[in-house]
Amino acid sequence: MRVAQFGLGPIGIESVKLGAAQSSMKLVGGVDIDSWKIGKSLSDLSGIAGMEDARVFPSLVELIAATQPDVILHTASSSATNTLDQLRPAIEHGLTVASTCEELIFPALKSPELAAEFHELAQRKGARIVATGVNPGFVMDVLPIALTGVSREVTSIYVERVVDASTRRQPLQAKIGSGQDPADFRTKFAAGKSGHAGFQQSVALLAHAMGWQLDEIRESCEPVIAASRIATKFFDVAPGQSLGLHQRCIGLAGGETKVVLDLQMYLGAPLPHDAILVKGRPQLNLMVNGGVAGDDATVAALINVVPRLLDASPGLKLVTELRLPLWSNPQWKC
Amino acid sequence: MRVAQFGLGPIGIESVKLGAAQSSMKLVGGVDIDSWKIGKSLSDLSGIAGMEDARVFPSLVELIAATQPDVILHTASSSATNTLDQLRPAIEHGLTVASTCEELIFPALKSPELAAEFHELAQRKGARIVATGVNPGFVMDVLPIALTGVSREVTSIYVERVVDASTRRQPLQAKIGSGQDPADFRTKFAAGKSGHAGFQQSVALLAHAMGWQLDEIRESCEPVIAASRIATKFFDVAPGQSLGLHQRCIGLAGGETKVVLDLQMYLGAPLPHDAILVKGRPQLNLMVNGGVAGDDATVAALINVVPRLLDASPGLKLVTELRLPLWSNPQWKC
Repeated sequence: MRVAQFGLGPIGIESVKLGAAQSSMKLVGGVDIDSWKIGKSLSDLSGIAGMEDARVFPSLVELIAATQPDVILHTASSSATNTLDQLRPAIEHGLTVASTCEELIFPALKSPELAAEFHELAQRKGARIVATGVNPGFVMDVLPIALTGVSREVTSIYVERVVDASTRRQPLQAKIGSGQDPADFRTKFAAGKSGHAGFQQSVALLAHAMGWQLDEIRESCEPVIAASRIATKFFDVAPGQSLGLHQRCIGLAGGETKVVLDLQMYLGAPLPHDAILVKGRPQLNLMVNGGVAGDDATVAALINVVPRLLDASPGLKLVTELRLPLWSNPQWKC
Repeated sequence: MRVAQFGLGPIGIESVKLGAAQSSMKLVGGVDIDSWKIGKSLSDLSGIAGMEDARVFPSLVELIAATQPDVILHTASSSATNTLDQLRPAIEHGLTVASTCEELIFPALKSPELAAEFHELAQRKGARIVATGVNPGFVMDVLPIALTGVSREVTSIYVERVVDASTRRQPLQAKIGSGQDPADFRTKFAAGKSGHAGFQQSVALLAHAMGWQLDEIRESCEPVIAASRIATKFFDVAPGQSLGLHQRCIGLAGGETKVVLDLQMYLGAPLPHDAILVKGRPQLNLMVNGGVAGDDATVAALINVVPRLLDASPGLKLVTELRLPLWSNPQWKC
């Protein structure tokens, strides 16, 4: 399987490293807009030997022409419209694409016409495209959905995730509003420039899987304010400034709350965990102690989805339409 | 979808009730060997109106001829060889079969040739067959496998399940050895006449999903001894007698322990729970508080698997080969 990496930021580099360890994958090239990366090899960028001939191109069209990949791993945008725009050449060529694009976890929420167009295009060209990740893509949507496989009845779903952001990468600490003035935090969130992306899409994916027609999705996001000074490798937060976010997203149907997602990501959050409550019969009350670690799990989800995506019929797929998630043992041949 | 129920014990009756609530399913008949049930209707047996014409037949051949079902729900045996023997007419007719047969969760473990023969037969006839349930089929195999969807690396998997059997149905309390003398308990387990069925198959399914070639599966089962008298609706257990079982099953590869399943099912077990530890990167430590309730969840798993099985290609399938488990909202039409 010839695999190329689109987007060579921190997550993209981790994806290259994990992909290179798979006996079923050969990394053949990359795409990035960063001029200093263009022309370098994936070995230069990742420090992993054996990819000296796998070069970085400034565009997907050039990459495809030069390297004939079968699979594209995409980690370059949170926006479904940007992502689909970026990936159009891959779909036109009938390739298989796995993306960490947050909004693409349920693209029909914000862009139903574009999603339908790409689904039709992918089916026609024999291409497959899916988004995955740890959140969205697993902890707050796929895992609670999988739990309901043993439910006779589901009336509502509540998921809570608490993440200590102090050990995470710099872009994430920035995105959650670390060190911001609370007023700036609120302004930026209102402008769509901060906060956890793909939250409404997780709610929509859950509701879709449960067969619930939501009337409304409500989202709010408030800063978690530092009581005392906290310093990480990247931020030094004074009392009164933001440590990160407390974001909530709720799905309502017929006046009833059907889905509640509650996310706290901030520097120094104590007792990180993921908790799921499926109300119904039987009641299901699940706790992941320590929580599912973000960056490792996102890259793992991306690599692990590839064999399952290749097994699916062509189209723009939801990750819930693929077979059961599982670890791809790197010693396996596909 | 015309659906028939094969096996009308307590679980079969619950399956009929839940199936009857699905707008996509019409219950058309049943099969049982119990002479007093034969000729009765599913409404007679379940107390649910609307199935007065759905009769119980003494054999699957007669049921198929009389009712032309599309789907068979099977809850009549723990043995894979018995189950496949019972279901041969359904496979010959190209039907879709979901079963709670414990050993069928990984039929190749004990009966590789029979499993291969039925897979080939099902493919040729356009039939689909899968086994599911809560355990085996979910808590100790499918759920830990699904968790590894966010794993970069998995080195070993440990699952612990503690069930308070005091509120469960009589056959289960008997099967786990409630009220037995400890010596009788050990004799019966050694003769394969008691204990939790399908345990070795759960280990084999986990190892198969992880790409591990096991050299050996070891299983042990000891009684949990009553310190004081405990009485349920069905059993009165004196001090020194068995309250139930503590069963362990371990899978080894290359001298390393890769899978450990530890099950305690006994009358009055305090703090029932399911716990999963996936060792690797990231470490995943999950707890289902209270545990997943057995009988409700088994019937739910059986009904919920049907739409996913219908989406799969023909054959004798593993439940891990189907798309993500999820609740079938009964108001949906397939």
